[in-house]
Amino acid sequence: MASNWETLIDEMKEGSIRALTRLITRVENREPGWMEAMKRIFPDTGKAQVIGITGSPGTGKSTLTNRITRVLVDKGFKVGIIAVDPSSPFSGGAILGDRVRMMDVCDLEGVFVRSMATRGALGGLNQSARDVVKLLDAFGKDYILIETVGVGQDEVEVVRTADLVLVVCIPGQGDAVQAIKAGIMEIADIFVVNKADLEGADQVVMDIKTMLDLDMDTSAAKPPIIQTIAIKGDGIQELLEQALVLLKTLEKRALWQEVRVREELIGLVEKEIVGLIKKNWKKDGGLDKAVQQIIAREIDPYTVVQEIITPLVSFLPGE
Amino acid sequence: MASNWETLIDEMKEGSIRALTRLITRVENREPGWMEAMKRIFPDTGKAQVIGITGSPGTGKSTLTNRITRVLVDKGFKVGIIAVDPSSPFSGGAILGDRVRMMDVCDLEGVFVRSMATRGALGGLNQSARDVVKLLDAFGKDYILIETVGVGQDEVEVVRTADLVLVVCIPGQGDAVQAIKAGIMEIADIFVVNKADLEGADQVVMDIKTMLDLDMDTSAAKPPIIQTIAIKGDGIQELLEQALVLLKTLEKRALWQEVRVREELIGLVEKEIVGLIKKNWKKDGGLDKAVQQIIAREIDPYTVVQEIITPLVSFLPGE
Repeated sequence: MASNWETLIDEMKEGSIRALTRLITRVENREPGWMEAMKRIFPDTGKAQVIGITGSPGTGKSTLTNRITRVLVDKGFKVGIIAVDPSSPFSGGAILGDRVRMMDVCDLEGVFVRSMATRGALGGLNQSARDVVKLLDAFGKDYILIETVGVGQDEVEVVRTADLVLVVCIPGQGDAVQAIKAGIMEIADIFVVNKADLEGADQVVMDIKTMLDLDMDTSAAKPPIIQTIAIKGDGIQELLEQALVLLKTLEKRALWQEVRVREELIGLVEKEIVGLIKKNWKKDGGLDKAVQQIIAREIDPYTVVQEIITPLVSFLPGE
Repeated sequence: MASNWETLIDEMKEGSIRALTRLITRVENREPGWMEAMKRIFPDTGKAQVIGITGSPGTGKSTLTNRITRVLVDKGFKVGIIAVDPSSPFSGGAILGDRVRMMDVCDLEGVFVRSMATRGALGGLNQSARDVVKLLDAFGKDYILIETVGVGQDEVEVVRTADLVLVVCIPGQGDAVQAIKAGIMEIADIFVVNKADLEGADQVVMDIKTMLDLDMDTSAAKPPIIQTIAIKGDGIQELLEQALVLLKTLEKRALWQEVRVREELIGLVEKEIVGLIKKNWKKDGGLDKAVQQIIAREIDPYTVVQEIITPLVSFLPGE
């Protein structure tokens, strides 16, 4: 591992935000040595609790994230925020007024905000989020909030692996129905009906209850439904109390940990092998040669693939 | 290769549509022996011309596909249609009236229609489309039309590798602007302004011209813009004439062939290796063991990954 990785990690552990930021960027960019660096910080991870906050655009996720952050900071916790939502003020996608309003949270003691692009993450969005969670965890954050718009499959995947998931709905948008469609219904640990002063809030609560009653699994506890007016701070204390209780008691946490570790392992192996193949095969000209032979119809692609796979097989795990 | 694969291939070569359909399904499902089967049919491929037809929903792609098919059939060609568009009448997503209207093309002599799900293809949508193209090609189709809605990245990828791409716009939908956004502008070989009897058709033509003029690459020939009223059959002859001329002269065809073969090779190797790893690692319990060790924090995921990768490296192509 290059010595500047070590220096960065040491500085990060001593509390340097600059070092943390650079580490995140370098790991995201998969700079040589990133895996050794992640190995090095791994013993310092596993302490932070991860809360996912998801919902359609315009449901006030960012304001909610802002409010939750303030309450956690008031309680003396250190908070990290990962904003995957492209329209989030945290990730710079909103109008200026919003962004200014959000800024203050970034300046709070012990709060670190990182925005993530939904496209183009070298290790995949999911893995990138996992890496950043680990780095924030090692940095000493107690809570990590992941704000993501619950639309694309990628975004849903990211929030799905949080320890606790808040699904945010608002009145009058048919969000409840949207939630079912997007498959985020099943991942909700708490439903937040935000903008609860708008007409129709009770109807949204009823809709969610109806949907939950349709669920056949009567053994599982139903996720609570909490009404908030994030912009005024109403309901945030209650929401957070429920969240913290659930985080302590949720059985699924252990289950999710297994799923998460498993997915991460498979994902990492995939990316590594595929990266190596692409790199080597291009480097030695073997790929070009194979392509020309296939075009000249001297060989078929399947034979080429088998020639590459066969020698690998006996070295795969399990063989 | 299991003997029933051989039987199916023999029957397919003799013209059995039932055998063709079953082959497609079995290859799509990655049934054991699929690669051997594809190897077997490979010498019979490489003759068909592939035309991609893409555009926003409601632009009349299916009607256009229908009309083009009829003209090709009248000229004595055999046509295969792959419908990736989930809203296409070919793939059964449209209202009954539409579907009935489309049915007749399916019954035309020498026309074979296959719809493809945009999600869940075992080998990936792209590779599935490539497999079906090869099977239709080996079956003896002269032209293969791929109809896809130009929205998702996956769908764009599919049509991108056709020999010739028609991008369909209509007046009054701001489709031209949509086309730039979706990144399908660059892949268009011909722009089709369909529903050209609607108000604003000339404006769409102007918009496209303006966009094409913004393109800095002055050496490249600009794609023609052809107005059609697919429902009446107007402009179809001209469109097809242009298409056939372009198919003969397009330099990009050779270029695309390289790109396509290269992508396909890398994609196939990826899928195969990843599939093998998942299967073996799960089978021998190694994955479960690693997961438990990571949760117990006896080992970190990166070390596990490196332990798997390291023995593989020397057997990768290029090492």
